[in-house]
Amino acid sequence: MVDDNFYMNLCLKEAWKYQGLTYPNPAVGSLILNNHGKLLAIAAHHEAGKPHAELNVISKTLELLGDTNIAHIQNPSEKHQYILENHNNKFKDFTIYVTLEPCNHIGSTPPCSILIKTLGFKKVVIGTMDPNKKATGGAQLLESSGIKVIKNILKQECNLLLEPFHKWQKNKPYIFFKLAITKNGIYDGGTISSSQSRTHVHKLREKIDLLVIGGNTVRVDRPTLDCRLSGGPPPDILIYSKQNNFDMTNPLFHIKGRKVFIENSLDRIQKYHFVMIEGTDTLFKETLDIVDSYLIYTAPNCKVGKTIQIDKKLKVLNQYQTDLDTIEWFK
Amino acid sequence: MVDDNFYMNLCLKEAWKYQGLTYPNPAVGSLILNNHGKLLAIAAHHEAGKPHAELNVISKTLELLGDTNIAHIQNPSEKHQYILENHNNKFKDFTIYVTLEPCNHIGSTPPCSILIKTLGFKKVVIGTMDPNKKATGGAQLLESSGIKVIKNILKQECNLLLEPFHKWQKNKPYIFFKLAITKNGIYDGGTISSSQSRTHVHKLREKIDLLVIGGNTVRVDRPTLDCRLSGGPPPDILIYSKQNNFDMTNPLFHIKGRKVFIENSLDRIQKYHFVMIEGTDTLFKETLDIVDSYLIYTAPNCKVGKTIQIDKKLKVLNQYQTDLDTIEWFK
Repeated sequence: MVDDNFYMNLCLKEAWKYQGLTYPNPAVGSLILNNHGKLLAIAAHHEAGKPHAELNVISKTLELLGDTNIAHIQNPSEKHQYILENHNNKFKDFTIYVTLEPCNHIGSTPPCSILIKTLGFKKVVIGTMDPNKKATGGAQLLESSGIKVIKNILKQECNLLLEPFHKWQKNKPYIFFKLAITKNGIYDGGTISSSQSRTHVHKLREKIDLLVIGGNTVRVDRPTLDCRLSGGPPPDILIYSKQNNFDMTNPLFHIKGRKVFIENSLDRIQKYHFVMIEGTDTLFKETLDIVDSYLIYTAPNCKVGKTIQIDKKLKVLNQYQTDLDTIEWFK
Repeated sequence: MVDDNFYMNLCLKEAWKYQGLTYPNPAVGSLILNNHGKLLAIAAHHEAGKPHAELNVISKTLELLGDTNIAHIQNPSEKHQYILENHNNKFKDFTIYVTLEPCNHIGSTPPCSILIKTLGFKKVVIGTMDPNKKATGGAQLLESSGIKVIKNILKQECNLLLEPFHKWQKNKPYIFFKLAITKNGIYDGGTISSSQSRTHVHKLREKIDLLVIGGNTVRVDRPTLDCRLSGGPPPDILIYSKQNNFDMTNPLFHIKGRKVFIENSLDRIQKYHFVMIEGTDTLFKETLDIVDSYLIYTAPNCKVGKTIQIDKKLKVLNQYQTDLDTIEWFK
């Protein structure tokens, strides 16, 4: 059925590609149908400080409808202002879908609710309402402007995207476990993931403030644990280890701008905000009680090696296919 | 980008849900956009002898546009005839996407090409051309009627759906290996798959003519290997085993209408047409050279147990999420 759920699912799929990368903002997806119901564009929020999903999808649509300038404007406020001045009523009676209630406050970007209202959209379909007291009120503003607002489409699924943001609001750490395995579950014996997956990991390392890794991985793999594939600042490192006899020529100790802790406890995690655990069997078992979600990269091959041996129920939050690997979030 | 590839991908996703189930027909997906470019319906071919994808998507669209009778007509020829008599030019200037060239011959259903032409579609977007000499010519007929025909959109991906059909045309067996594992690769220790996945397996067992299973699985699991979850006829069984000392009270020996072979060779497979191997480690390794594709059901949990230990590159053909498990086809 091509209904509101169908379109909200397209928004969700786009949003999940940026889960984690938008921290501390929630990942949000959005799409636009024209006045005849034709799907024009799908977009997501990519990174805190960059345009919201609504601004991105409106930009893409304006470009599609012939505007040749909008694609060159990077700054969200300028993008917003340009659209206000150059929309030429092209969005009149259009419909916008968005996984999260359009914001109603001036943050690093002007309010999306005002933009949607000004552009003349006739219908706004919202996945879940904004839990952020400062930003809420977008739906109310739109409704009071006579726009048809439909709320809570795939609400539960849309809420799943917000969990890191909720933890941030409560000033609690959001902790996810990253695992790279083959289709038959093997995690050891050299590089598992594709270059696209490894770049994704490096982008996440830019966003986290602490990376947790097992002592044995440091000894055997001698990883650098930086963000060289994406270019951003490196996270602090907690090496979880009973012994602290590490070879200090190991490259991870020589990355500027980071702290490295070697500790026989995971307590330090609670002092950070956004934490990725890059582990295998031991860390998987020892962090069961504190992990919020699992990010699993699965390579499309089988190999000979070790698999994690544990009984643990998981729930798929989202999955998508990259060039080679499958990227999945589990709870 | 919402372009021809985007819509063809939606058709592909729908078609893959029926891969194997349409044998010996190819699995085909189709969708319709109205004259304004609004997506109206997506459908697939479900089973040989049942309506083609085009007939299904046209039916769904007619129903959506207000027809209350079409949904009750099951017979493909009657459906076809009813549409010819009751379309009321509702499809005028619509666009249809289909992963495979619309057929041009009278098989168990009348030709889809004539239906598309008669209904007044203005544009037909085709994934790949029909390799069946009897059925080909659909695109030519449509073009010569003045319809805009766009060919070879995601051709390679659309061709992947046709492989069982190609083997059937060449009178060669199509052999796929079915594996059920947990996310951490474990295959043993009781039921792995969800009830929806197991029903899917039973539907496939109706379509295959031979099911291959290892002797040890028969001894340990005492499986029935019938189609009780879907209701169709059971396939013949080849138990691949060095010994033939089986407990003959084992339920699989008592299913009517099937032959059971116990053999220390896989040669018998070549005498059949559509063969599923339900195995684990040993059969996986011993059938590497003859298997055309792998159908892997992955349950969203980790457990303690055995994993297949082998080095083997795979390529994801398609994946989709059911209620719980992920169903993936690999090459």
